[in-house]
Amino acid sequence: MIWPISNLDYSSLVGRISLPFVFSSNVTNTVEANGLQNAYQRKYYNQQENKSSSYDQSCHSVFRDNMPFNQLLGLEFVTQGSGLETQISLHLNWQPSLTGNPMQKILHGGVTATMLDTIGGLVSIIETIKQTSIEHLVDLQVRLPTMGTVDMRVDYLRPGRGERFIATAAIIRKGSKLVVCRMELHNEKGDHIAFGTGTYMLG
Amino acid sequence: MIWPISNLDYSSLVGRISLPFVFSSNVTNTVEANGLQNAYQRKYYNQQENKSSSYDQSCHSVFRDNMPFNQLLGLEFVTQGSGLETQISLHLNWQPSLTGNPMQKILHGGVTATMLDTIGGLVSIIETIKQTSIEHLVDLQVRLPTMGTVDMRVDYLRPGRGERFIATAAIIRKGSKLVVCRMELHNEKGDHIAFGTGTYMLG
Amino acid sequence: MIWPISNLDYSSLVGRISLPFVFSSNVTNTVEANGLQNAYQRKYYNQQENKSSSYDQSCHSVFRDNMPFNQLLGLEFVTQGSGLETQISLHLNWQPSLTGNPMQKILHGGVTATMLDTIGGLVSIIETIKQTSIEHLVDLQVRLPTMGTVDMRVDYLRPGRGERFIATAAIIRKGSKLVVCRMELHNEKGDHIAFGTGTYMLG
Amino acid sequence: MIWPISNLDYSSLVGRISLPFVFSSNVTNTVEANGLQNAYQRKYYNQQENKSSSYDQSCHSVFRDNMPFNQLLGLEFVTQGSGLETQISLHLNWQPSLTGNPMQKILHGGVTATMLDTIGGLVSIIETIKQTSIEHLVDLQVRLPTMGTVDMRVDYLRPGRGERFIATAAIIRKGSKLVVCRMELHNEKGDHIAFGTGTYMLG
Repeated sequence: MIWPISNLDYSSLVGRISLPFVFSSNVTNTVEANGLQNAYQRKYYNQQENKSSSYDQSCHSVFRDNMPFNQLLGLEFVTQGSGLETQISLHLNWQPSLTGNPMQKILHGGVTATMLDTIGGLVSIIETIKQTSIEHLVDLQVRLPTMGTVDMRVDYLRPGRGERFIATAAIIRKGSKLVVCRMELHNEKGDHIAFGTGTYMLG
Repeated sequence: MIWPISNLDYSSLVGRISLPFVFSSNVTNTVEANGLQNAYQRKYYNQQENKSSSYDQSCHSVFRDNMPFNQLLGLEFVTQGSGLETQISLHLNWQPSLTGNPMQKILHGGVTATMLDTIGGLVSIIETIKQTSIEHLVDLQVRLPTMGTVDMRVDYLRPGRGERFIATAAIIRKGSKLVVCRMELHNEKGDHIAFGTGTYMLG
Repeated sequence: MIWPISNLDYSSLVGRISLPFVFSSNVTNTVEANGLQNAYQRKYYNQQENKSSSYDQSCHSVFRDNMPFNQLLGLEFVTQGSGLETQISLHLNWQPSLTGNPMQKILHGGVTATMLDTIGGLVSIIETIKQTSIEHLVDLQVRLPTMGTVDMRVDYLRPGRGERFIATAAIIRKGSKLVVCRMELHNEKGDHIAFGTGTYMLG
Repeated sequence: MIWPISNLDYSSLVGRISLPFVFSSNVTNTVEANGLQNAYQRKYYNQQENKSSSYDQSCHSVFRDNMPFNQLLGLEFVTQGSGLETQISLHLNWQPSLTGNPMQKILHGGVTATMLDTIGGLVSIIETIKQTSIEHLVDLQVRLPTMGTVDMRVDYLRPGRGERFIATAAIIRKGSKLVVCRMELHNEKGDHIAFGTGTYMLG
């Protein structure tokens, strides 16, 4: 899928959202910038610590509030750690409307695929930003907007039973144009429900 | 994903739904049976023609009304032809809530994956029923309930733009345990939006 | 995989091989040029017909003679038609050394994967050249050398039994950077042995 | 692909090869049995230690000596540890005949696919044997012979450069009929060259 960053009015988000650091041309003026953006600033300019909660809010803003389908499903973006060490995962509470099977509480396979694709794309974007040096962030700004999923494989390992589902992702390889990502879905008991591999392209 | 047929009360559906022909032990008593069920009866007993519209309704009953997530998305099952020659496809009208991208009317990749998985599983089930001789339908009844998606590859070919999306599927190979299926998603203009390959297992 | 065109001395091949039309800066001087190269010249300059057999030889030169592993396996490149209408397929005669199974004449799954990957890459390259206008062929020359397989899915449909195996490919989508291709392997009886989907990247 | 175990004369291998423990009906009489077979015997009967080198030889016998294509490529099966804790990997020394690219020492993508498919199938078989209780080994013996690859995804992460290539695999999930496996290919420097996911079916 094409990721939502592509058409956001980045300038309006500066200071409120950390990801659009790359998308803003007047970053240096943004006093209330934080999260990943500040992580960069710390990395290069050794600035003071900022609270990661605002980074957390940022992800919510970009990926849930701005992606109606994620909102329809009730996807939650949860972060641990702060700045460049932030780990992000995608959570979803069980709801009857997500049922693929009317007689049992089993997640529809499309919900599983949605969670894997979304976390894979999100982690690919974040890692790309992390690994981009400040001087190349402007170039990235031009290319990131059209980032999208090229292809994805989903392995359905077990029926999607549970009260809460957690999707995580790890980069297998980050190239200049393509990112390959490995995704997993577990339930609250740690049962491994699905496994995925996705290829994502920078625009 | 695990398909909903697995836990339906098949006996209550007899006469109303054609698919459960296989699931019913007292088929011969079902005077209002029709669709695929009748296709079988015609095939073997040369019965009179029945209208395919009821088959159409059957698919709605099983796959939309009984799969809450399909209902949430607004998936429509559309059939052409009648009896064993019935072709089935999956339609979806554009809705803002399916957006992956807030600024443009682009389908979330998870919706695409959901449509491909659903049509692939549905066509796999129908083809399996079609190719099963009457004497083996009882065996199939035991195994079909736990049919599920083993794995799926989705190729996102173009941004999901359009007013109406149509998913179709064709069997590549039907084995005794596994069915391999090829799926496609087009919009109302015929633009090829996504391509998929799925492996489905009979229980 | 990375395709062999990447490191060929294209200038030395001009006139002998048709594909490197794109790779040569002094094409107009090459009187003995033919095949796909001439197809272009015909297309734009309405030149006289050339025999496709030389195109056939070209493919042999580039893909078999220059790819040692293809040679080790005994892959044959077979063309039908001429010029831009040329259809290419990959043939392989059964040999005991290709056995995955010592007791039966069954092709090793790695041979199947090799044939699908090779025909997919070859057709992707040819289609890319075909769809590139003459004025952009120089750009393509810069990017084609690093063309490679990004990822591939192989579906093993039936045991690889037969005397002769034929791999074919069709483009699903050709983008500016990525080509998605569908590949099939049949035996001489037409049994469908394997199905594949590959994503190939232009450099 | 269909795995070679399917048609081996298991009875002739008893005592020489450890894997065919499952395939032999007179195991208790086999005094020179060792390796995985003995691991089972130790596990249940607390027998004395046996050297793993014979297990190593067994793998060579079954997978290299009995699979001509593995032999043609020069694949080596390397084991670490002993008995049930044995870890197996697949090694390959660079040879010019494996070249996909004539100008550089880059592995043909088909060799990569072959290595991933082979190690995935091998580890799937071994894990299946390990996780089968002694009383069900006879059932497994009936089903294992037709074990084969259902489908496989290969992600080509980097050009296949190196002097020695090592393929490893880990089970993602082992079901009663299907095994899902994750495979990786590295070179001697530890560069991650390819990643794969395979679905294997017990007969």
